[in-house]
Amino acid sequence: MAGHDGAPQSADLGHSRLDLSRTDRIGMPEAVFAAGKQPQQCVEIVARMLADTDHPVIVTRCAPEHRDALAALAPDGTWSSTLTWRHAPTRPGRVAVVSGGTSDEHVVHECVGTLTAMGAPTQVVRDVGVAGLHRLLGAVDELDDVRVVVAVAGMEAALPTVLAGLVGTPIVAVPTSVGYGTTFEGLTALLSMMSSCAPGVSVVGIDNGYGAACAALRILGPDR
Amino acid sequence: MAGHDGAPQSADLGHSRLDLSRTDRIGMPEAVFAAGKQPQQCVEIVARMLADTDHPVIVTRCAPEHRDALAALAPDGTWSSTLTWRHAPTRPGRVAVVSGGTSDEHVVHECVGTLTAMGAPTQVVRDVGVAGLHRLLGAVDELDDVRVVVAVAGMEAALPTVLAGLVGTPIVAVPTSVGYGTTFEGLTALLSMMSSCAPGVSVVGIDNGYGAACAALRILGPDR
Amino acid sequence: MAGHDGAPQSADLGHSRLDLSRTDRIGMPEAVFAAGKQPQQCVEIVARMLADTDHPVIVTRCAPEHRDALAALAPDGTWSSTLTWRHAPTRPGRVAVVSGGTSDEHVVHECVGTLTAMGAPTQVVRDVGVAGLHRLLGAVDELDDVRVVVAVAGMEAALPTVLAGLVGTPIVAVPTSVGYGTTFEGLTALLSMMSSCAPGVSVVGIDNGYGAACAALRILGPDR
Amino acid sequence: MAGHDGAPQSADLGHSRLDLSRTDRIGMPEAVFAAGKQPQQCVEIVARMLADTDHPVIVTRCAPEHRDALAALAPDGTWSSTLTWRHAPTRPGRVAVVSGGTSDEHVVHECVGTLTAMGAPTQVVRDVGVAGLHRLLGAVDELDDVRVVVAVAGMEAALPTVLAGLVGTPIVAVPTSVGYGTTFEGLTALLSMMSSCAPGVSVVGIDNGYGAACAALRILGPDR
Amino acid sequence: MAGHDGAPQSADLGHSRLDLSRTDRIGMPEAVFAAGKQPQQCVEIVARMLADTDHPVIVTRCAPEHRDALAALAPDGTWSSTLTWRHAPTRPGRVAVVSGGTSDEHVVHECVGTLTAMGAPTQVVRDVGVAGLHRLLGAVDELDDVRVVVAVAGMEAALPTVLAGLVGTPIVAVPTSVGYGTTFEGLTALLSMMSSCAPGVSVVGIDNGYGAACAALRILGPDR
Amino acid sequence: MAGHDGAPQSADLGHSRLDLSRTDRIGMPEAVFAAGKQPQQCVEIVARMLADTDHPVIVTRCAPEHRDALAALAPDGTWSSTLTWRHAPTRPGRVAVVSGGTSDEHVVHECVGTLTAMGAPTQVVRDVGVAGLHRLLGAVDELDDVRVVVAVAGMEAALPTVLAGLVGTPIVAVPTSVGYGTTFEGLTALLSMMSSCAPGVSVVGIDNGYGAACAALRILGPDR
Amino acid sequence: MAGHDGAPQSADLGHSRLDLSRTDRIGMPEAVFAAGKQPQQCVEIVARMLADTDHPVIVTRCAPEHRDALAALAPDGTWSSTLTWRHAPTRPGRVAVVSGGTSDEHVVHECVGTLTAMGAPTQVVRDVGVAGLHRLLGAVDELDDVRVVVAVAGMEAALPTVLAGLVGTPIVAVPTSVGYGTTFEGLTALLSMMSSCAPGVSVVGIDNGYGAACAALRILGPDR
Amino acid sequence: MAGHDGAPQSADLGHSRLDLSRTDRIGMPEAVFAAGKQPQQCVEIVARMLADTDHPVIVTRCAPEHRDALAALAPDGTWSSTLTWRHAPTRPGRVAVVSGGTSDEHVVHECVGTLTAMGAPTQVVRDVGVAGLHRLLGAVDELDDVRVVVAVAGMEAALPTVLAGLVGTPIVAVPTSVGYGTTFEGLTALLSMMSSCAPGVSVVGIDNGYGAACAALRILGPDR
Repeated sequence: MAGHDGAPQSADLGHSRLDLSRTDRIGMPEAVFAAGKQPQQCVEIVARMLADTDHPVIVTRCAPEHRDALAALAPDGTWSSTLTWRHAPTRPGRVAVVSGGTSDEHVVHECVGTLTAMGAPTQVVRDVGVAGLHRLLGAVDELDDVRVVVAVAGMEAALPTVLAGLVGTPIVAVPTSVGYGTTFEGLTALLSMMSSCAPGVSVVGIDNGYGAACAALRILGPDR
Repeated sequence: MAGHDGAPQSADLGHSRLDLSRTDRIGMPEAVFAAGKQPQQCVEIVARMLADTDHPVIVTRCAPEHRDALAALAPDGTWSSTLTWRHAPTRPGRVAVVSGGTSDEHVVHECVGTLTAMGAPTQVVRDVGVAGLHRLLGAVDELDDVRVVVAVAGMEAALPTVLAGLVGTPIVAVPTSVGYGTTFEGLTALLSMMSSCAPGVSVVGIDNGYGAACAALRILGPDR
Repeated sequence: MAGHDGAPQSADLGHSRLDLSRTDRIGMPEAVFAAGKQPQQCVEIVARMLADTDHPVIVTRCAPEHRDALAALAPDGTWSSTLTWRHAPTRPGRVAVVSGGTSDEHVVHECVGTLTAMGAPTQVVRDVGVAGLHRLLGAVDELDDVRVVVAVAGMEAALPTVLAGLVGTPIVAVPTSVGYGTTFEGLTALLSMMSSCAPGVSVVGIDNGYGAACAALRILGPDR
Repeated sequence: MAGHDGAPQSADLGHSRLDLSRTDRIGMPEAVFAAGKQPQQCVEIVARMLADTDHPVIVTRCAPEHRDALAALAPDGTWSSTLTWRHAPTRPGRVAVVSGGTSDEHVVHECVGTLTAMGAPTQVVRDVGVAGLHRLLGAVDELDDVRVVVAVAGMEAALPTVLAGLVGTPIVAVPTSVGYGTTFEGLTALLSMMSSCAPGVSVVGIDNGYGAACAALRILGPDR
Repeated sequence: MAGHDGAPQSADLGHSRLDLSRTDRIGMPEAVFAAGKQPQQCVEIVARMLADTDHPVIVTRCAPEHRDALAALAPDGTWSSTLTWRHAPTRPGRVAVVSGGTSDEHVVHECVGTLTAMGAPTQVVRDVGVAGLHRLLGAVDELDDVRVVVAVAGMEAALPTVLAGLVGTPIVAVPTSVGYGTTFEGLTALLSMMSSCAPGVSVVGIDNGYGAACAALRILGPDR
Repeated sequence: MAGHDGAPQSADLGHSRLDLSRTDRIGMPEAVFAAGKQPQQCVEIVARMLADTDHPVIVTRCAPEHRDALAALAPDGTWSSTLTWRHAPTRPGRVAVVSGGTSDEHVVHECVGTLTAMGAPTQVVRDVGVAGLHRLLGAVDELDDVRVVVAVAGMEAALPTVLAGLVGTPIVAVPTSVGYGTTFEGLTALLSMMSSCAPGVSVVGIDNGYGAACAALRILGPDR
Repeated sequence: MAGHDGAPQSADLGHSRLDLSRTDRIGMPEAVFAAGKQPQQCVEIVARMLADTDHPVIVTRCAPEHRDALAALAPDGTWSSTLTWRHAPTRPGRVAVVSGGTSDEHVVHECVGTLTAMGAPTQVVRDVGVAGLHRLLGAVDELDDVRVVVAVAGMEAALPTVLAGLVGTPIVAVPTSVGYGTTFEGLTALLSMMSSCAPGVSVVGIDNGYGAACAALRILGPDR
Repeated sequence: MAGHDGAPQSADLGHSRLDLSRTDRIGMPEAVFAAGKQPQQCVEIVARMLADTDHPVIVTRCAPEHRDALAALAPDGTWSSTLTWRHAPTRPGRVAVVSGGTSDEHVVHECVGTLTAMGAPTQVVRDVGVAGLHRLLGAVDELDDVRVVVAVAGMEAALPTVLAGLVGTPIVAVPTSVGYGTTFEGLTALLSMMSSCAPGVSVVGIDNGYGAACAALRILGPDR
């Protein structure tokens, strides 16, 4: 099947059918979700993507065995469980990634790794949970000129609610599975974020740093 | 069955068995939960309590038909669905009842009505939800000399978390069934409050203003 | 308490504490959620907002008794259960509101009513559920020059997923409580939207047309 | 206990009581569910089935230790965790097994392995998730002459809904436990499939490729 | 938008966008789900369907006000809350609808009403719950020559499991919301049916008699 | 279909298929669950049962309209929503029905009404919730010579746990839907009873006084 | 603290406070739940119980490390994860333990091990799930002279429902965590059993073979 | 950012932003939640806290690798998974920690470890579950002069309810994840505690011994 410019829209690797026209359609390439795939399958997919397209290549949720298999292709300094190649040139529009606690870091990494690969400048504000409100209030000024805020929080997840009462920026909230007591692996944070008394918070799935990055990229818009 | 002072510990009305020694044991009388009882049953219980004990009498969750049946006994100015008689003398130790929104008022009423009947002075701070943080920050000074804070909130219920990061007072949180979207009749607020990232928030059941008042009375202590 | 320009930040009506500085902080006024408030309380709040600010005034989830009480203030042609006054001037940046079925209309109304009050032009595409895919594919072209898509759907809620694979626009998904079988009053739609295999869909609460409008307004940005 | 043809209906192995007359009653033999059984128990069951009946023998959910214990009996080329012996002759009526993503493969295997053992020709269409709709639309023609479609999908599981709006074939949907965010180990996919806005999708349990194969075999009918 | 034969694929009524080509695509017309629609909207939709197509017309979940509004169009003897017009000619292939109890009747009606409109002969076997097993065993012979069994049951919903161990026919199970104790409005029945220890039971949503009929029609096949 | 003594096992009333041989099989007649049946259906069922069998007849969950329709048949003094006719002679073996609160009375009634119809003597101990432990401890002596205890409780449902640590009698626990806060219409009580730290408590469904009576009757045994 | 016969009621081991008077009160000794206890703690508890009482001693949920630590005390032939010492003399009243499948065996073991230690004769009927109904029907005669039936089943758990329609014996149902698809670790079986359409089934917790044995012992009564 | 006394309010370690002013605000220092943090991060945080403040330092939920990394700093005799340094001087006001079973000990440890570090005298009453009520009744006298009771229980969690009917002290209930059957990792205990029929029980999250200690410390008040 061919797209409107004659290039193939899909590539069939047997185990996978790559969506090669996704960047043409929606401005973002198909990312590879490594969990549940064999390392060799990931290698074949990445190799084909590097060969058949000229877009960034992103692999999320890599276990060490995925990373080892992909090592020959990997640049220096990629992010924890998110591996990326052939980054897009830096584009205008900064994204702030704000987190409630140290333990949310794996989600921050996935989000920042994806944004960086796609050329979006990021600004990370860590560990500003609302139990010490002065930490968050002290950081609000840093958010003045960002285009999108990604708010990452676990536990009771009050962070995006408080933020959304302070700034008018789009806020994409990411609940994290961090916590104990009655956090139920992020479900409490998810429900809390979606029930925010502050207007206009929208939410992605638990620990879904990649999804939040994509939502932010959609907001930054097609001019990248 | 008789208590240690020879007074009867229970009274059997056929439909109900009153716990007459509860104040002796735990410092609070048995309250009457009207929902699910016939109005005439409530009248018989209240009449017996007024006759056989000298403690305050409290009826919660009254529908209009309960109120009408109890009207001959009721004092002026009782609270909405909570009816009370023979209030205890005012005692030291003030309780602040802080609410997130106007729609939490039915819970505030039940809590304040119970505290007032038991002689505890109250201070109500309404509609200080965290979406407009200045409202809450502006009210914190008023909490300086209270002995207990009851924090009533629905939606994402961030109020007790933010409060618990600002003051060292005991905080009894009451989730309310107020809200829409994903509030699930108070379940989201309940889970959020119990997962608070701020230390030492304890929680009672959804809309349970009476239970919060009792928890506050336990904290004020036996010297009333 | 006064804001940075000397104007009062809050107004205390006894039952409610209005957040008068919200537009200054986040570009959107506090909306009035009528459900759970007495009609007379709504009238007092709206009167005060019209007197003390110069922003649009929005009341959501009005029952007929709220509408009747507010009738003296209401313009012609307001939207179903959402009443609005003193609309903002029309601003650039169009928002498409796309719905899966006829029964989602109450959410569409709340969303469009809010957007219109805030000056955002809207474009409504109704009843394009994915069971008849040609209806949706035939409507994609209409979405070419919108800045945000609000996707409203109940049942299995596949609409935003299919859309997100076709266009690169920001997509704010609203699950609706429409349906039967195993829709559980919108919970299935909510979970489905948050688990979308298409990248960058973000979600607001069930039936929360107002919240989706606010998320869209944040994306349109402060220059309105 | 003896069946209507004098053959024994059951065989008692102490730990298990085999249902030897199942093929006579419903056209399908009892399959062995290996998970939770000791390898030696599986060997005894399979040996008895091979000896006492002349139907295909199917073992599902084999761990490596089950496979090793059963190795002496296994033919070449069995499917991953599903082991089969003594396949039925090929019969008319083709079954398409369509999957949303690479990670659904374990369910595809169990389904195809069972169908193959029972003599039903299969056609596998992999990785045609709706985020890249052209992949699915490009594959619809391949479904023209199949008698049943088994649709395997995780995440938001929109695949059977979109398919059911395009073809009139029976559609048996299998939710998979694949995913993250809010997929809750397949529960979201299950609910989504059962709430499909497209008519006539029926659903089996999470990851239950075997059950879907049996439902398909029932549809193909007794003439095999 | 026009279909492959030049006829319009959709009709836009403002509030609804009818899927006129559905019978061409999948062999079943779009049914009208009355709940949540205004009676006048239903009348407009039915009138248009009668005018623009020559297929059966089916309206499900009619309240009395829908029935009254549609009365001028209704034939004698339609089924309870399901109204139908212009039935298809009788076709080969009988469907048995088997129910566990008297209280499941509303689901039986919706299913039989839909099948009848589409020309499928039906056979109803009522009130054969497994607590009195002889009732069910006595009815199994009646199922010998049916092509599909729709099994309708509430409570613990053991009916399709027992049936599926006795006959090889396709079994489409419909959980009903009937019951008390821990039936949770059909959820228990739903889970029980999907966890059946008998092979090849597939399930539609709670009380979804219409969906079960459509699944049965897909199995009967396109030659009707 | 005929039973082993030639009497008919079932009676087909069109809407219902009565299980006439149930008492022969399990010692208890089929009871009629009125909720969801039309009053006239109940009348036809009861009339047939009175005519065709000589066992007690029991109708549970009657609304006023069922009671009115059945009035010509009803004896004096039947229990609230449970109607019974032709009681069995009194038999040995007493059953204690113990309840936690006044609001559990509807369940006590259904249980006692059923037991009485079946000839089992009962002893009711009301309103002995564990918050006033002396009430329960004072009543334990009354349980010395009962054969079964039915423990009815809502809220946190600690009653059967405390009882099961004090007496060795069989304890059938019935959770009730009474309560507020986090009782979730009896679900909390159900889970609490099933998680009892005291050995040998068994549980029936929420508010299922009839089921508890039947469990007690099974324990009393066939010699009645 | 001393009981009525002067013997100590409790023994304080520091980590545990043994309930030495339990057999006097309820006819069953306190069992030791090994999971979550250190092996050495179990040894100290068992040694003290053997020394201070003359009742059977029962330890449930032993991991291999518990078994090894207790080996010096253990008799030959104890049951899998349930260890027992000093069995009571055999008493009248047989208990049937009936299971649906081979994988329910761990629960059967715990139940039979406990009953045997307490002197109750048992009869085990394995693997008679309702998908092959003849297996169960063929075994019903074996249940004629038992005093209690313990029905152990996972998956859809129809076994106790079918049994309860066939015999009048007390039926204690035990849901097991066996299964896949939508069994949710026994929750589906639990709900199904509690919603049984057959009268008088009572239920204990998931996999709780010990609790079922205790419920059976209560029914057998104090004369052991 | 500096507090009102010029001391820094926060310290930024890159991965964490310490809340140095928490003791000034709420009388309790920020505790370190080790789970999810790397051991080296914990070492850096503890070192900084010891250097920059003069308050107690508390680390909860330490795995062995955290303990090893922190060993150089640790005093003798710290509690299991809770490590503490630089304890506050002993203060007036005793806290009783009462537990239902031996398996609740990990929660008792976390609670007592925190209280001890903060200078609060504690009294531990172990293994007094309500199945052997004499154990609890025998211990009530020991609670006469405590200021707060922390009640720790799993399973059906009746302990705080029974206690709250016996004493007037504040009761902070901690549900534990101990148990099996239907305890759902503490959820049943949590719901039971929040639904207590005894007045004034308040609850913290599952296994949250630290949170209960903090709630107790708030009640003891600022005079420490």
